[in-house]
Amino acid sequence: MGVAIGVERSAAKSLDELKKEFPLICATLAKTRPTAVDLFWAIERMKKRFGAAATAGASLDSIRAAMVAEAQHVHLEKRAIDEAIGRFGADLMPQDGSVMTQCNAGALATAGIGTALGVIRVAVEQGHKLTVLVPETRPYLQGARLTAWELQQDGIPLTLITDNMVGHILKTRQVGAIVVGADRIAANGDTANKIGTYQIAVLAREHNVPFYVAAPISTLDLSIPSGEHIPIEERAADEVTHLRGVRIAPDVAVANPAFDVTPAKLIAAIITERGIARAPFIDSLRALCAGVRG
Amino acid sequence: MGVAIGVERSAAKSLDELKKEFPLICATLAKTRPTAVDLFWAIERMKKRFGAAATAGASLDSIRAAMVAEAQHVHLEKRAIDEAIGRFGADLMPQDGSVMTQCNAGALATAGIGTALGVIRVAVEQGHKLTVLVPETRPYLQGARLTAWELQQDGIPLTLITDNMVGHILKTRQVGAIVVGADRIAANGDTANKIGTYQIAVLAREHNVPFYVAAPISTLDLSIPSGEHIPIEERAADEVTHLRGVRIAPDVAVANPAFDVTPAKLIAAIITERGIARAPFIDSLRALCAGVRG
Repeated sequence: MGVAIGVERSAAKSLDELKKEFPLICATLAKTRPTAVDLFWAIERMKKRFGAAATAGASLDSIRAAMVAEAQHVHLEKRAIDEAIGRFGADLMPQDGSVMTQCNAGALATAGIGTALGVIRVAVEQGHKLTVLVPETRPYLQGARLTAWELQQDGIPLTLITDNMVGHILKTRQVGAIVVGADRIAANGDTANKIGTYQIAVLAREHNVPFYVAAPISTLDLSIPSGEHIPIEERAADEVTHLRGVRIAPDVAVANPAFDVTPAKLIAAIITERGIARAPFIDSLRALCAGVRG
Repeated sequence: MGVAIGVERSAAKSLDELKKEFPLICATLAKTRPTAVDLFWAIERMKKRFGAAATAGASLDSIRAAMVAEAQHVHLEKRAIDEAIGRFGADLMPQDGSVMTQCNAGALATAGIGTALGVIRVAVEQGHKLTVLVPETRPYLQGARLTAWELQQDGIPLTLITDNMVGHILKTRQVGAIVVGADRIAANGDTANKIGTYQIAVLAREHNVPFYVAAPISTLDLSIPSGEHIPIEERAADEVTHLRGVRIAPDVAVANPAFDVTPAKLIAAIITERGIARAPFIDSLRALCAGVRG
């Protein structure tokens, strides 16, 4: 959508001008975030479509229309993908009881019903009686501000917790499953996701709670063998020291990695729109992926 | 101090009146928090002193003076205890590098240099070159607001992190030790401390980082065999949904346990003013305790 808007708003007056500007539009969007690979996948797709549309003699209007149409096509595909992930994942949810997620992998972060929240939504639609434990996900509070709100809107019962309550909750309550999204999945199944996901996965194993990742095939990055190669975005200190403009900590040194990597060994299954991958992920993911990217 | 202030401010005009009021003063203070046992220890001590002072014919002024003197005596003792804990614990800190704590077990939470922070302070005084990783400790942010501030005041280098970064930090940096305080320690070594401590201990073991508890003997509760018997205070939902009066989450169900219990098996040592206890804690703690409470 960002690429389509960039092309729509371009002041270019000729095909040559637009062809010169187009890589800058793509580069600007690519620079916004380093960790999530879906961003780069979508830009690549728009580049391909641009290449096909921007042939000699093509009018600028026809190219703009092609870009918008492609973006809308991606949107519709992504909606269908979320539904498919939801259907595959619903079977892994308990029939009754508590599940946990992290950050927001819902409608506010995707084009459809969400990946992790899509799984929960489809399960609830199918009659599972679930209560969702929602860690607030500091520093940006996507759990509190987005996931809690989405679930509330859908009438799905939830309990909001702070991020340091996860261990205590897993120890003292029955939690049937944990399902999270992903920003990038390496060939071996190592998964980058919002900061805090890794420690939730460690705590899940400690308490024998199955830990699932729900993500589209476009989140796979088979070009990297393991999670070590995933760049982790470090964000500004004031996300930690301030909240809605109010200072909540002294002026001290801060670490603010926005993501972390969960090793594949802690992941029970990766739920994609093509089916469920299980260890050894290197084979299982490759099989699901086959033919999709060629 | 609270009991002394209660007696100082009492409107009682006779010994009988004061004797009737005294249990109410103690009960009011005892009701403030259920988890930390040091509170009950201090109240018991003031009760004993009151009993000794409130003999037939004693003037109200003499009783008031005795209460204040006893409270000040406790204060001085506690300062010495923190120093002793610091000296025993300093040897367990790395000579160089990072250590982590949780919540505030410093001067703002104790009468002296702190328990966990006392250990860090003495180690730094002795020449250890430490950087302290400080989890902010939601929902009340004692790490960000108190511990970060104390360390900054002392010129001890620190890095503030959110609670969901602990796993990632332990995985990606060298952390030499973790040292936390305690609100109550059961006979077997199970330790109640601020929410989040339990999961830090699990993550410490996952990354082979020694996890220490620093606490005075008065924090031991040999009357309970294990941590299961420690009551966990559940606090108001708005501590999670609001921050400094600003709403940060929708109006949803919230869990807000203020403490959790770390099982003894995750604790490398318990540092007290009488020495260091190690597994099996049941014997080791009893030995340190012997003669102190009789």
